[in-house]
Amino acid sequence: MRIAFQGEPGAYSEAAIFEHFGNHLQDNHLQTVPCESFEEVFACVARGDCERGLIPVENSLAGSIHRNYDLLLQNSLAVVGEHYLRVHHCLIGLPGVTLSEIRSVISHPQALAQCDAYIKSLGGVKAEAAYDTAGSVKIAREKNDRTLAAIASRRAAELYGMQILAESIEDNAENITRFQIIASQPVAPGSDAKTSIVFALKNEPGSLFKALSVFALRDIDLTKIESRPLAGKPWEYFFYIDFAGSIQEEVVVRALSHLEEYATYLRVLGSYPRHRLGSSEDKQILMSNKEK
Amino acid sequence: MRIAFQGEPGAYSEAAIFEHFGNHLQDNHLQTVPCESFEEVFACVARGDCERGLIPVENSLAGSIHRNYDLLLQNSLAVVGEHYLRVHHCLIGLPGVTLSEIRSVISHPQALAQCDAYIKSLGGVKAEAAYDTAGSVKIAREKNDRTLAAIASRRAAELYGMQILAESIEDNAENITRFQIIASQPVAPGSDAKTSIVFALKNEPGSLFKALSVFALRDIDLTKIESRPLAGKPWEYFFYIDFAGSIQEEVVVRALSHLEEYATYLRVLGSYPRHRLGSSEDKQILMSNKEK
Repeated sequence: MRIAFQGEPGAYSEAAIFEHFGNHLQDNHLQTVPCESFEEVFACVARGDCERGLIPVENSLAGSIHRNYDLLLQNSLAVVGEHYLRVHHCLIGLPGVTLSEIRSVISHPQALAQCDAYIKSLGGVKAEAAYDTAGSVKIAREKNDRTLAAIASRRAAELYGMQILAESIEDNAENITRFQIIASQPVAPGSDAKTSIVFALKNEPGSLFKALSVFALRDIDLTKIESRPLAGKPWEYFFYIDFAGSIQEEVVVRALSHLEEYATYLRVLGSYPRHRLGSSEDKQILMSNKEK
Repeated sequence: MRIAFQGEPGAYSEAAIFEHFGNHLQDNHLQTVPCESFEEVFACVARGDCERGLIPVENSLAGSIHRNYDLLLQNSLAVVGEHYLRVHHCLIGLPGVTLSEIRSVISHPQALAQCDAYIKSLGGVKAEAAYDTAGSVKIAREKNDRTLAAIASRRAAELYGMQILAESIEDNAENITRFQIIASQPVAPGSDAKTSIVFALKNEPGSLFKALSVFALRDIDLTKIESRPLAGKPWEYFFYIDFAGSIQEEVVVRALSHLEEYATYLRVLGSYPRHRLGSSEDKQILMSNKEK
């Protein structure tokens, strides 16, 4: 199975692919395909070059990745899965280097910001921006400078033959990214499912309240709501909603039929198996990472 | 009155300040204060260096400027006004240059994207990214290259003594940015008012529906809803809501008191006079711009 992601080899998106599909597939049947942009991930799956694509949609600290919500709408692909990845940043240097030698650190600005307190605690270490976390490890390798470290995933360190000087250096432990998995065709969602939809409403008082009533009146639990402007119609919005349940359940079919009475546009992006990031599961993942 | 904004002189934020305050104040009593970052705009007002700050919160094509929602929450300033600015991009070259001489165009990536069809229509003209729209005019002036044009506001062209080669070159005419005005103290909102609030809810089924009911049951019209993650509490959110009415109205006081029954956190950012971007008003603005 070929799975597209945005970024360099060793990116957190690639780590999410291995976590998500690692339990279901033999490693040698899993091929990750790096893409330059999110658009290219969608195009790869639409063309049939890859069976699946994996895109980040939200980070617990930074919020939604809006570009991917727009691309879900512009493309006619189905959402067939989700994955929550706990992000653990590593400080990565040349082999044989010690922490006390480090004088500057390079990474994506968001990763630098997420490790700000740690970097300050090192004392007199300068932070420099790079376009990518995994790419910053590549740069540090090429510069061959013993005083330069990068911040990226454990896998990025391994890929480029570099050394991990410190692990889990993020200031806030609750740094989790949610990914969605896209495919050209829907899948059977199973019994513990979630559904993602997008809809538009008339711009009139109470319209969102009415739209949410179709779920509240049927005890359907919303897990996410997001609004995006409708291009060409200032201050009218698309709403993206995720809820517990699948379109194979009668109560969900009725709720969506009810929603159609109010919505000027409605599309089901997909029903898919729900992923839960439990603490025991998280520990297993950490352990399996350390065993590699 | 000193008013802080983010960007270089000639930025669209500065244009919004002149549009908003121009009718109420003599030009010589209005001083715009450029700041390097949004953080600095908030700090400027908090320190008392400026009486007001003006921050973009949403664009009709690109969506919300999330950083400023976070800063509204982190600071204890009041929202005292809003302004809708219709964004008209100009193609700006050296004095005496004709359109046919232009071979490359420089601007902020978002402005380049918003004029994509126009740039393509010029044929063989290369686009280059700059950090800022007004800053790109400064660069074009300094390079002193007859084949280089910038994309920015009319005012930026005037400030740097440059020539406007084409006006309103944006592909989508409905390109509007909404700004909010911040101050250290609230103002009297008047009779045609809007109110901005932020609140958090328990993460349980139907909680957002209940929260919206306090407005729907009282026929209070929501004009905007936005969600932002709560740092350290994955998948719990702050909600930012704007609605018609002021906290001096009994029905609004009752709605907010009702909301307090459900909300784990509630803060009124401010009530302020509503700004409406009507077509006649918009024409006046365009005319007054052309007269300058």
